[in-house]
Amino acid sequence: MGKMLIRNVEVLSFEGRKPIFSTGQDLLIEGNQISSIEPTSPILQEDCQVIEASGMLAVPGMLNTHAHVPMVLFRNAGPDVNENDWFNKVIFPLEANLTPKDVYWGAMLGLAEMIAAGITCVADHYFEMDWVAKSVEQAGTRANLGWAVFSHQGYGQLEKTIDFVERWQGKADGRITTWLAPHSPYLCDPDFLVRCAQETARLGIGNHIHASETAGQVTLSLELYGKTPIQMLADTGILDQPSIIAHCLYPTDEDLDLLTGREVGIAQAPKTYLAMAMGLADLPKYLDKGLAVGLATDGVVSSCTLDLFEQMRLTALTQKNKAMDAEVLPVNTVLDLAFQGGARVLRQPRLGNLKAGNLADVVLLRQNRPAVQPVINKAANLIYSLDARDVDTVICDGKLIYQGGRHLTLDLDEIYREVNSRLPRLLNKDLSRKIADYPG
Amino acid sequence: MGKMLIRNVEVLSFEGRKPIFSTGQDLLIEGNQISSIEPTSPILQEDCQVIEASGMLAVPGMLNTHAHVPMVLFRNAGPDVNENDWFNKVIFPLEANLTPKDVYWGAMLGLAEMIAAGITCVADHYFEMDWVAKSVEQAGTRANLGWAVFSHQGYGQLEKTIDFVERWQGKADGRITTWLAPHSPYLCDPDFLVRCAQETARLGIGNHIHASETAGQVTLSLELYGKTPIQMLADTGILDQPSIIAHCLYPTDEDLDLLTGREVGIAQAPKTYLAMAMGLADLPKYLDKGLAVGLATDGVVSSCTLDLFEQMRLTALTQKNKAMDAEVLPVNTVLDLAFQGGARVLRQPRLGNLKAGNLADVVLLRQNRPAVQPVINKAANLIYSLDARDVDTVICDGKLIYQGGRHLTLDLDEIYREVNSRLPRLLNKDLSRKIADYPG
Repeated sequence: MGKMLIRNVEVLSFEGRKPIFSTGQDLLIEGNQISSIEPTSPILQEDCQVIEASGMLAVPGMLNTHAHVPMVLFRNAGPDVNENDWFNKVIFPLEANLTPKDVYWGAMLGLAEMIAAGITCVADHYFEMDWVAKSVEQAGTRANLGWAVFSHQGYGQLEKTIDFVERWQGKADGRITTWLAPHSPYLCDPDFLVRCAQETARLGIGNHIHASETAGQVTLSLELYGKTPIQMLADTGILDQPSIIAHCLYPTDEDLDLLTGREVGIAQAPKTYLAMAMGLADLPKYLDKGLAVGLATDGVVSSCTLDLFEQMRLTALTQKNKAMDAEVLPVNTVLDLAFQGGARVLRQPRLGNLKAGNLADVVLLRQNRPAVQPVINKAANLIYSLDARDVDTVICDGKLIYQGGRHLTLDLDEIYREVNSRLPRLLNKDLSRKIADYPG
Repeated sequence: MGKMLIRNVEVLSFEGRKPIFSTGQDLLIEGNQISSIEPTSPILQEDCQVIEASGMLAVPGMLNTHAHVPMVLFRNAGPDVNENDWFNKVIFPLEANLTPKDVYWGAMLGLAEMIAAGITCVADHYFEMDWVAKSVEQAGTRANLGWAVFSHQGYGQLEKTIDFVERWQGKADGRITTWLAPHSPYLCDPDFLVRCAQETARLGIGNHIHASETAGQVTLSLELYGKTPIQMLADTGILDQPSIIAHCLYPTDEDLDLLTGREVGIAQAPKTYLAMAMGLADLPKYLDKGLAVGLATDGVVSSCTLDLFEQMRLTALTQKNKAMDAEVLPVNTVLDLAFQGGARVLRQPRLGNLKAGNLADVVLLRQNRPAVQPVINKAANLIYSLDARDVDTVICDGKLIYQGGRHLTLDLDEIYREVNSRLPRLLNKDLSRKIADYPG
């Protein structure tokens, strides 16, 4: 069993929900877990890979609670468009061009981006997910993978996504888990959702789904079904299973009560909400209810980057302004949400915190740019000044996958070559050929 | 006269307000100006410093229209506080500790940060400005410098700031210009503002001032004087001179009419507005009126970074969400505002655009991170995916000042050492000793 020692490092860990910064620590990894974090010892262990980390800050690998990773193939393909056009004139027609191999190379590019930004685990919601699974296996990260499905594709397609779940559950040394991924209550009819709920119950897994993203979706759901999207998830049994709900910006108070006390996590990607002018969630209310909230990148056709440092900063900044109160979401709450929140949403109790016994997903941040000096308030510096560019080293499941700006599991030149060679075909858009119709 | 050739580079320039991206260009600098931008020639000129820039994007050096650069000494010293506490319990007491040498080292750190982020010109509004001027001279950048003054300090202090204006006007090979900097209508009484207007008229310069930052300031001004802060600036003659108005989030429609057609520029720093929960300006309205609007970093006790790429992105994102319309501030408008807008606000017609005859302030951006690939929409990529970390090379006034992540005019180790050695004294806060009282 390999040993790795991160020597003389500052460590961010959490006691309960409270972040603690401890300087001068030795973080020892044995196999795929953290075995100890103790004040730096002058005596070096033998048989141990040593990473000298003086001046660096160790933080937990970040957990991206909702993404469409291969969508990097279409990065910035549709700026300045509102939601209906975004779906029906940009992304759904573009996605009709995707082949399984496109998805693979998109996932490889997106994983390279996420690793460089300190993200070691992603809940991905996309298509041709065997190819995303293969890329995760290669990259050395963790993932919760769900093959997106719409009810108009029929139950045969749902079966195909169930086969994927069974094929990849626990693979890549346990780094991959698989769930179902019905797209949303607006593109999956109630019977289809009931079936998804039944299947996830049978399989002992959860659902990863979009819901209540815009005020318009709530209105439409009330018109069509006489219930909100969240009520629909409750009534179809989806909420009786573990769930990741992407976005959930417009729950009613009754919806919030329905979500409370369940195995539900809410994924927040404010960069998307700003770019697409969707409004913002009332997060202090969700947190007061005890709901699990984590950060997400969403896909880059709306959010333009796969970067949770940016989403963390935007979460804090936008919530203060929404509340018109700078005391809202103070730094300790933001750090808990960004690191431990992601682990709660993804139901990974051994991630999101650096402590003995937890899985060894560790990110080392340099703290030596002019923009992050001097360090007066460590928590505020981490949220508002440090960012993904400061990521120096990434360890996932006890293995080094990125160091000093260099990927150790991925070949960037090959990825760029593959992605760019596919681009002309991928961007050849035909509005009459799209994967679904957004009904907004 | 030195010649520098940036070879085989992609260039962002503007035709009128429209951004144009041209690949395969040779950008030739002679002395301190751009002498030509032409398709790459196979024949190399002799006697010419050559920068091979294949794959890079050349953009104009960015203009920071409002900052308090030396405030980096107090970076993140007061997170999660509203405006009154921010002034009266954080920044005004901390600033009572500043010595001239502190200001110098703070400016050096802040200039290092800005250069690394592609900012080549800053309108700085602070204290002990001779020391900021010295640091700008050393760093090799441009600046419009104003020594902040409150009316409670008296006319003697105003005279001292006028002496500074005369001492440094046009210095550092013309890179430094100097203006007056009355703090604000809430901390300068009307007679004081009248005097500032008279002095700037006499000196042929402008005023750099805060105004209408919060709804509360407008209410207070109406209560005290029966007029808005902007009306106060008009009635005291300030607006008859060139002006930079920092923030200006709450102008009435009558205020906007007062500002129209004058030599007035408005500085926007949305990261501050979000962090301090101040609300947001209605920028499309300002732009419709033809007002000059530029980006600003403000000081890092509120904005935490001196980064105009971040402010550009936040401007676009927050304005879309404020309007609940993703079509607001489309990419071309954002780029014009970010680059040419800054030049308009700072009244620098030979900056903000890369074209023959303009001053040679040029920034080269790498475009080779996974997070900025593939490039589908160049304008959107520059705003939403590329950022300050992609800055490779910075040229100001025809001189290389930063290359490959290395500062050529500043010694970072010395700066960090000086700043950190001053920190314990600087952070020793005594609430009974502060430089001014915020009346909010």
